[in-house]
Amino acid sequence: MANVPDVILEPMVRHAIMEDLGAAGDVTSRAVVPGDAQYRAELRARQDAVVSGMQVAALAFRLLDPSLKVTVLVADGSACKAGDTLIRVEGSVVSTLAAERVALNFAARLSGTATLTSAYARALEGTKTRITCTRKTTPGLRLVEKLAIQHGGGFNHRYSLSDAVLIKDNHIAAAGGIRPVLEAVQRSVGHMTVVEIEIDSLSQLDEVIEVGGAQVVMFDNMSNADMAEAVGRIDGRLTTEASGNVRLERLVEIAATGVDYISSGALTHSAGAVDLGLDF
Amino acid sequence: MANVPDVILEPMVRHAIMEDLGAAGDVTSRAVVPGDAQYRAELRARQDAVVSGMQVAALAFRLLDPSLKVTVLVADGSACKAGDTLIRVEGSVVSTLAAERVALNFAARLSGTATLTSAYARALEGTKTRITCTRKTTPGLRLVEKLAIQHGGGFNHRYSLSDAVLIKDNHIAAAGGIRPVLEAVQRSVGHMTVVEIEIDSLSQLDEVIEVGGAQVVMFDNMSNADMAEAVGRIDGRLTTEASGNVRLERLVEIAATGVDYISSGALTHSAGAVDLGLDF
Amino acid sequence: MANVPDVILEPMVRHAIMEDLGAAGDVTSRAVVPGDAQYRAELRARQDAVVSGMQVAALAFRLLDPSLKVTVLVADGSACKAGDTLIRVEGSVVSTLAAERVALNFAARLSGTATLTSAYARALEGTKTRITCTRKTTPGLRLVEKLAIQHGGGFNHRYSLSDAVLIKDNHIAAAGGIRPVLEAVQRSVGHMTVVEIEIDSLSQLDEVIEVGGAQVVMFDNMSNADMAEAVGRIDGRLTTEASGNVRLERLVEIAATGVDYISSGALTHSAGAVDLGLDF
Amino acid sequence: MANVPDVILEPMVRHAIMEDLGAAGDVTSRAVVPGDAQYRAELRARQDAVVSGMQVAALAFRLLDPSLKVTVLVADGSACKAGDTLIRVEGSVVSTLAAERVALNFAARLSGTATLTSAYARALEGTKTRITCTRKTTPGLRLVEKLAIQHGGGFNHRYSLSDAVLIKDNHIAAAGGIRPVLEAVQRSVGHMTVVEIEIDSLSQLDEVIEVGGAQVVMFDNMSNADMAEAVGRIDGRLTTEASGNVRLERLVEIAATGVDYISSGALTHSAGAVDLGLDF
Amino acid sequence: MANVPDVILEPMVRHAIMEDLGAAGDVTSRAVVPGDAQYRAELRARQDAVVSGMQVAALAFRLLDPSLKVTVLVADGSACKAGDTLIRVEGSVVSTLAAERVALNFAARLSGTATLTSAYARALEGTKTRITCTRKTTPGLRLVEKLAIQHGGGFNHRYSLSDAVLIKDNHIAAAGGIRPVLEAVQRSVGHMTVVEIEIDSLSQLDEVIEVGGAQVVMFDNMSNADMAEAVGRIDGRLTTEASGNVRLERLVEIAATGVDYISSGALTHSAGAVDLGLDF
Amino acid sequence: MANVPDVILEPMVRHAIMEDLGAAGDVTSRAVVPGDAQYRAELRARQDAVVSGMQVAALAFRLLDPSLKVTVLVADGSACKAGDTLIRVEGSVVSTLAAERVALNFAARLSGTATLTSAYARALEGTKTRITCTRKTTPGLRLVEKLAIQHGGGFNHRYSLSDAVLIKDNHIAAAGGIRPVLEAVQRSVGHMTVVEIEIDSLSQLDEVIEVGGAQVVMFDNMSNADMAEAVGRIDGRLTTEASGNVRLERLVEIAATGVDYISSGALTHSAGAVDLGLDF
Repeated sequence: MANVPDVILEPMVRHAIMEDLGAAGDVTSRAVVPGDAQYRAELRARQDAVVSGMQVAALAFRLLDPSLKVTVLVADGSACKAGDTLIRVEGSVVSTLAAERVALNFAARLSGTATLTSAYARALEGTKTRITCTRKTTPGLRLVEKLAIQHGGGFNHRYSLSDAVLIKDNHIAAAGGIRPVLEAVQRSVGHMTVVEIEIDSLSQLDEVIEVGGAQVVMFDNMSNADMAEAVGRIDGRLTTEASGNVRLERLVEIAATGVDYISSGALTHSAGAVDLGLDF
Repeated sequence: MANVPDVILEPMVRHAIMEDLGAAGDVTSRAVVPGDAQYRAELRARQDAVVSGMQVAALAFRLLDPSLKVTVLVADGSACKAGDTLIRVEGSVVSTLAAERVALNFAARLSGTATLTSAYARALEGTKTRITCTRKTTPGLRLVEKLAIQHGGGFNHRYSLSDAVLIKDNHIAAAGGIRPVLEAVQRSVGHMTVVEIEIDSLSQLDEVIEVGGAQVVMFDNMSNADMAEAVGRIDGRLTTEASGNVRLERLVEIAATGVDYISSGALTHSAGAVDLGLDF
Repeated sequence: MANVPDVILEPMVRHAIMEDLGAAGDVTSRAVVPGDAQYRAELRARQDAVVSGMQVAALAFRLLDPSLKVTVLVADGSACKAGDTLIRVEGSVVSTLAAERVALNFAARLSGTATLTSAYARALEGTKTRITCTRKTTPGLRLVEKLAIQHGGGFNHRYSLSDAVLIKDNHIAAAGGIRPVLEAVQRSVGHMTVVEIEIDSLSQLDEVIEVGGAQVVMFDNMSNADMAEAVGRIDGRLTTEASGNVRLERLVEIAATGVDYISSGALTHSAGAVDLGLDF
Repeated sequence: MANVPDVILEPMVRHAIMEDLGAAGDVTSRAVVPGDAQYRAELRARQDAVVSGMQVAALAFRLLDPSLKVTVLVADGSACKAGDTLIRVEGSVVSTLAAERVALNFAARLSGTATLTSAYARALEGTKTRITCTRKTTPGLRLVEKLAIQHGGGFNHRYSLSDAVLIKDNHIAAAGGIRPVLEAVQRSVGHMTVVEIEIDSLSQLDEVIEVGGAQVVMFDNMSNADMAEAVGRIDGRLTTEASGNVRLERLVEIAATGVDYISSGALTHSAGAVDLGLDF
Repeated sequence: MANVPDVILEPMVRHAIMEDLGAAGDVTSRAVVPGDAQYRAELRARQDAVVSGMQVAALAFRLLDPSLKVTVLVADGSACKAGDTLIRVEGSVVSTLAAERVALNFAARLSGTATLTSAYARALEGTKTRITCTRKTTPGLRLVEKLAIQHGGGFNHRYSLSDAVLIKDNHIAAAGGIRPVLEAVQRSVGHMTVVEIEIDSLSQLDEVIEVGGAQVVMFDNMSNADMAEAVGRIDGRLTTEASGNVRLERLVEIAATGVDYISSGALTHSAGAVDLGLDF
Repeated sequence: MANVPDVILEPMVRHAIMEDLGAAGDVTSRAVVPGDAQYRAELRARQDAVVSGMQVAALAFRLLDPSLKVTVLVADGSACKAGDTLIRVEGSVVSTLAAERVALNFAARLSGTATLTSAYARALEGTKTRITCTRKTTPGLRLVEKLAIQHGGGFNHRYSLSDAVLIKDNHIAAAGGIRPVLEAVQRSVGHMTVVEIEIDSLSQLDEVIEVGGAQVVMFDNMSNADMAEAVGRIDGRLTTEASGNVRLERLVEIAATGVDYISSGALTHSAGAVDLGLDF
């Protein structure tokens, strides 16, 4: 996939730069590094990983100082080995140091998400089942975390409350049941919005199929046996998604139920950071 | 400690709300939940934890709908047990559902940081050594992650490049050595800014002490033996900080060297999320 | 449908207020109206209409002065007659006058869109065909114009380039044909994103059906005869949308082809304003 | 007239781009168009028009991707014929497609305003009377709509409540009459602010002339006969403006009364869009 | 005059609060003052003054903490004596201390401007000449400094480059003389914009009168004798403004020339601060 | 010291540009200066000064029009003579005029602060005492005023409430005395934050020394004799700062007490503007 345009990332990166510069910028480097010192720095991986955040990190250096020459050597979505140089930065030492932490904080975290996603995706290779994320993302970083999911070989769930319908148990209760909730959705939602409904039993499934109006059904914490039975009953008429208690070691058995997607919040909320560093 | 004023958190929370609402808000709830439906929801812990993000989560509900009655039952910095209700929200169901994910994303993540910090702090109980964080925070969330460190019993390192001097190896190299770097700092930095210098050998320490001008010395990936020797040579004239390869199980032995602070980036970059949920 | 939360509208309304206040606010009223003058003003329709923008107009008064008592008497989506009072504002005259033009500019324009949409929707009553909008909206006002479409009885097309796939002729050309374009989409887009493809001939339709991967097909400027034939070939397997040369007087004949949706850019780009006024 | 500086337009255009990109940008083009595809696109008129919004549209392409080569071929304020190429864009196809709708939405709407204004201005050719706009503009687009008025050969009324005094019936009532309202204005407003007063009868005019302190008088919905009489009584001492019930076919007869300006809200609130398209 | 609405001041005050709170807020008060401590503080004058900035200071306290009870005892534009209480603040001590410096910085500075303006205005009492400001204001504070001018009894010059025409020597040179410059203005500027032209000789004045199209003439660094002669020649047909080398002690002699306005940049760029303090 | 990065100054400068351009930009120059007119302008000092704001002024020109060629001839922190050219601007006349006032307003004010600071710093030459500022800065301009202090040879006090602890009388009262206040600080503040405490008597000093936990002590309006005594008792264990009633003519006698720093609010709140102009 092509990159997203920098213009969409710029407010987030600019905000992060301002946060790290603080009120007065990098007082250390300004005090001790000659203003005209030039050098070449390299952002390197210190462990094997699938990288993400390279576009963001490069943008951080460029926003801090447009005169820096920034070269991305390993594209977002590629695998790297410990020791690989991911980005090369040439120019002002003061500028490079001022952007270093922001670039690393983004790249380490997003590569963490891509790397974990990649492990999930590899575990599902050979099956038709895809791994997908949730809305359990870091506040302010949803776009780049969703991209990191793609970079790791995963697929994106909805970006926000606005761009797809997901009917949960609270909605069913508030609307008075599966039939009224699906009918209410049909009355107000048009043809460009996917409708997904979460169920936790086979009996709910039958009603969902009967009423119609949903394209996706989410199995919430259902047993493998029930999910397999559900996939059979659906017989291709709905896209299916398994949710709840998803761990790397369970992926193969869940995929064996025949579900189309497995969703995991851990990909974004608990991926940890990849070890990266900037060397001069 | 008293809370920070809401006004300082508001832009971050407002941004997160807009991110999760997306272009058109919560299309699901608007379509299926009656606009005047009222209820009481409870944000509950599903595991033992030290909580953080309660002020932030409460603010998310209030910004989404000022008519919601939001009560924080467990204050930031307190321990909770699985099953405890942390926040009670009374009022519009549509509003509560629209803010739910933002509130949970903040609270789960920040409680994860506080809980991990608390484990580190407890490990250091009975010693004089304190646990402190770094600038390896999530872009955009530095303030709340720094507060989570406090809620967990830790101490904050500098907030940004602006509010303290931290001289690293690149600075020493660029300035031409320890003496010139410390003299350069003294020429431009006043009395309200702490000066810390990172060293990786005892010989560097001797020069730091001789030249003067620093108040804190950071031992970067030095052995326990060297750190103990360094603490002895310093004899209370400088504050000391151990950095690098810090893990929970190493805390006691590092503290035994007599350092004042141990800093850990993992507290913020790899803490994971505490399991929380909103129940109606 | 319930209202969207005010928080999502606030930046747009606040920006409009600042634009109209200018650098120094309402110099006329400040100079000539006593600061403590209180009165009751009524925003009235001067023609029959379907109203939209009431929530926005009310918010404009409240943001300008939270002490104003603002009562919406005719809800968004309701029909009104010439002379009906839509909103009552009680309180400071200076504040009411300062917000008047912003409130009217929003309400007149959005009611224009809702009223025109309503005419289209009424023309389609008794058919299964629905009227829908496009992305030809006023820059900065997409959300409220999309809501006005709903208030008029129409349905929303996608909100942005992000929340659904719409494959046009340029995309087909760039990807090398219908098959490669649909396969490329399937490789990167997940289950929560609708895929629509625009065609202008029946032969393209056959390929779309054969390849699969799209849920919606748009007939771009196709004849009624061809659209009827296409609907027959599709036989319920795809949602259909007629686009191009859509005018009020053509709606019935287009609906007779059996298409599910008719989209019209004119609903948002050329609706004109409803005549409204504020009376004291 | 020279262009306004891009810096003043940039926030508006950037906001419109973000609105149309949505949370994740153009998912269609990113999925199906090769990231390195280059081409030349041309923004063309599909009807005769007076163009406006060219500077804005060009800025949209440049903000989306600074590497696009954008050439404006028909300057704002010029007439064009159906088929004319207005702007040429060379470079990344993905970038061009991502900015297309924003550029078209601005240009089509603003050219609509300029074209309508031009018709009004041509109708007044050979008279001394000028056509002017009002504050009935689209929220958020006031500047560019005011410029479109200029591009069409019209003149601008005040930009905001701040930059001129306009005394209306409500102000006269609140201040207790024409004399007190004009005296109040004189006490607080200096020499760089024009004072206009709206009247609806000849008797009010006499008092305005007698009291002094206004430079412009607006005739609100007065008959042609009364306006002619008023212009005679004024005898060049005040600038005059006709307002209310202004339609293209009435312009000549209103001008015959000798008024200096005719103001029309329809120029901005109901101009409709010119048909433009982007061809590859 | 009535106050400007708080909504127009809020971004400026909010920005100032964030600037003073810094990354983490008031670490001192949070550490040492009990979070529930309540008290009454009084903002007092420590010298005689004409006050301005009271609305702004009150807003600072309220934005920092909406639960503070803030009472303005001396309105903007009033004179106060040393020792007078200007604002009373009741509520949280932590909140009051956090807003103190922002409130004082605004109020001290703006009262300085109002007090200096008041001295100028008093010197002109008994003449028809008014004192007015320039655009030599503090970046970011133009509105409140312009209001402080009003509070001190002065009048405002234009707020920005947008809301009036001021033709200076560079413009005359670029346009090719007084006649072409005035004709160019007339071709593009409408009836709601004042046109002022700066001259430095009597011969220029004659041409300005002959060509017409200006309403105000500025005498730039002209002698008293020349200004008196100019006022005579103008004979009421133009408003006149004296500029350059304006000092308090010269006001009476300049006014004796008969000019309508005297403008002074010093009122805003060099007024100094009034001594104010917050007492508990 | 190296410059701060432009990215940190950009929002402030952009805001100031928008403030001065107003709603519609420079209507005068757009009307009368040919859009393609090019020239060379020079920003010159009209009095001797120490300059500051050159980086800011240059940025103002570049942000207004990136095609302007801007050359800073006298760097921030350098002395200049009346008549010296400080900045040369080559390119569009319309653009240069549009940015002129913003550039001058920043540069004149900041050079005023640097020049006054320089006078104070020179008065202290030959002593070990340094001059430092306070938080009595212009709202919105703290960073550039703090930099101007540096350019004048002074040192910065804390930037905000966040980046150092300063315990004042109110804090001591609220906490219940010097011992509890210092102990409270020690419990929550880490090693990277300087702790300063304000005292007004020698008896307070003894308690501060005894309790420990502060690195800096501020003498608030204490007599020279008491300060000299205090410096003696401290004997190098604390950094000392004299505050209150600081005037240029008192600097030498205060320095004679042996204090390390003298702080003055007047440097930022009452410095006045240096006379600068832009010549074509």
